[in-house]
Amino acid sequence: MARLLYDLCGIDDELRFSPYCWRVKYALAHKGLDYTDKPWHFTDKDAIAFSEQGKVPVLVDGDVTVIDSYEIFRHLDRTYPDKPLLGDQAAEARARFFKFYSERSLAPGILRTVIMDLFNAVHPKDRDYFRQTREKALGRTLEEVHAPSKGLTLLDQALEPLRGRLAEAEFLDGEAPAGADYLVFGHFMWARNVSSADLISNADPVYAWTERMLDLHEGLGRNALRSVDIQGAYRNAEA
Amino acid sequence: MARLLYDLCGIDDELRFSPYCWRVKYALAHKGLDYTDKPWHFTDKDAIAFSEQGKVPVLVDGDVTVIDSYEIFRHLDRTYPDKPLLGDQAAEARARFFKFYSERSLAPGILRTVIMDLFNAVHPKDRDYFRQTREKALGRTLEEVHAPSKGLTLLDQALEPLRGRLAEAEFLDGEAPAGADYLVFGHFMWARNVSSADLISNADPVYAWTERMLDLHEGLGRNALRSVDIQGAYRNAEA
Repeated sequence: MARLLYDLCGIDDELRFSPYCWRVKYALAHKGLDYTDKPWHFTDKDAIAFSEQGKVPVLVDGDVTVIDSYEIFRHLDRTYPDKPLLGDQAAEARARFFKFYSERSLAPGILRTVIMDLFNAVHPKDRDYFRQTREKALGRTLEEVHAPSKGLTLLDQALEPLRGRLAEAEFLDGEAPAGADYLVFGHFMWARNVSSADLISNADPVYAWTERMLDLHEGLGRNALRSVDIQGAYRNAEA
Repeated sequence: MARLLYDLCGIDDELRFSPYCWRVKYALAHKGLDYTDKPWHFTDKDAIAFSEQGKVPVLVDGDVTVIDSYEIFRHLDRTYPDKPLLGDQAAEARARFFKFYSERSLAPGILRTVIMDLFNAVHPKDRDYFRQTREKALGRTLEEVHAPSKGLTLLDQALEPLRGRLAEAEFLDGEAPAGADYLVFGHFMWARNVSSADLISNADPVYAWTERMLDLHEGLGRNALRSVDIQGAYRNAEA
């Protein structure tokens, strides 16, 4: 059965930084499912009009179209029950918290740290769209949001529960990674692929976990193209 | 089988404010297990010397003694498998995160807001002990930790994932409360019983959840004695 994933790309077709798409790529790898990925730009609305909305990830799995990273996790568990991502009812209720934790606790601190790097990673044809939508959502200009020192302080606080858990376990889901790990790690891939900022000290248990996550599934995350790998593309926002 | 819970008390034997003991009282009520509670002061070390350490909760369940609130949850699930608190392996791995979230994300903001109220709720014979141990752990005097405006800002940030989850579900564990709810709610009982501070706006989905939690198990939390109910005892730290 043919599987197609629309995945956000930036200044290079291979530069992929959507945290939500990264969740899905890890989830597909976890299930051992093949797919074709389709690079997509923010303004390529026509290309995904069939999904009746304008954002990625969009997964086309045979004759089913699924949007929203968490809904894709649910779809994958229903359709391919082996190697659960979210698990049964009790486990799934708790998985949900990790979605909100990554989006509402981790993302704000990361965003304030890397937002200008992120802007530089966005394809030139998408930059007006990116600026307008983000400035509207944030109620401030990108330049006003950019405050790496503040961002790192926020992130440091937000990392506390992650530190506690990862000091005692290899993965959020225990001895092996599963849905909770992928829901959270997407935001670390987002930062990694657009920025060279050191978000976490290498003495932090969270750092060791990010290293393990990068190595998973044959180096899925580690082998991904980063802005800093593209000659002339990376302009450190702090420079 | 006789069950005995050593539960921290303050200026009144009925004033109970340990977040860890509150976790356990909710867990016992969830399982429908009777117990005798034994009021205990911070300095009553001899009374629990049989547990080979000096902190509560201590649960004596027949001929088994269990310390640490999370270990008590595990003990209860093993011994009384009906109505799981933590659940199976996948669910339990995720429950663990709620322990760290409440202790490391919520507690610091609450503490900075209510610490002087908390100090006033501590039994006079325990106050030197409380001050010495807490000042050593925090690296500052109680008066320096006391910063309600900063505390409420920290708490507001820390509540974000809870808000997201509780805007869509009645309880963290879904349609009915279980271990994740009790692990987090203990810290709200801690604040409630020593302080009149409004930690959460009543328009917040977290507030509606605290109201539901207070009503559970025949009003276990709502009916508990608070400092503000003790004539002459409550001195608002802001006054």
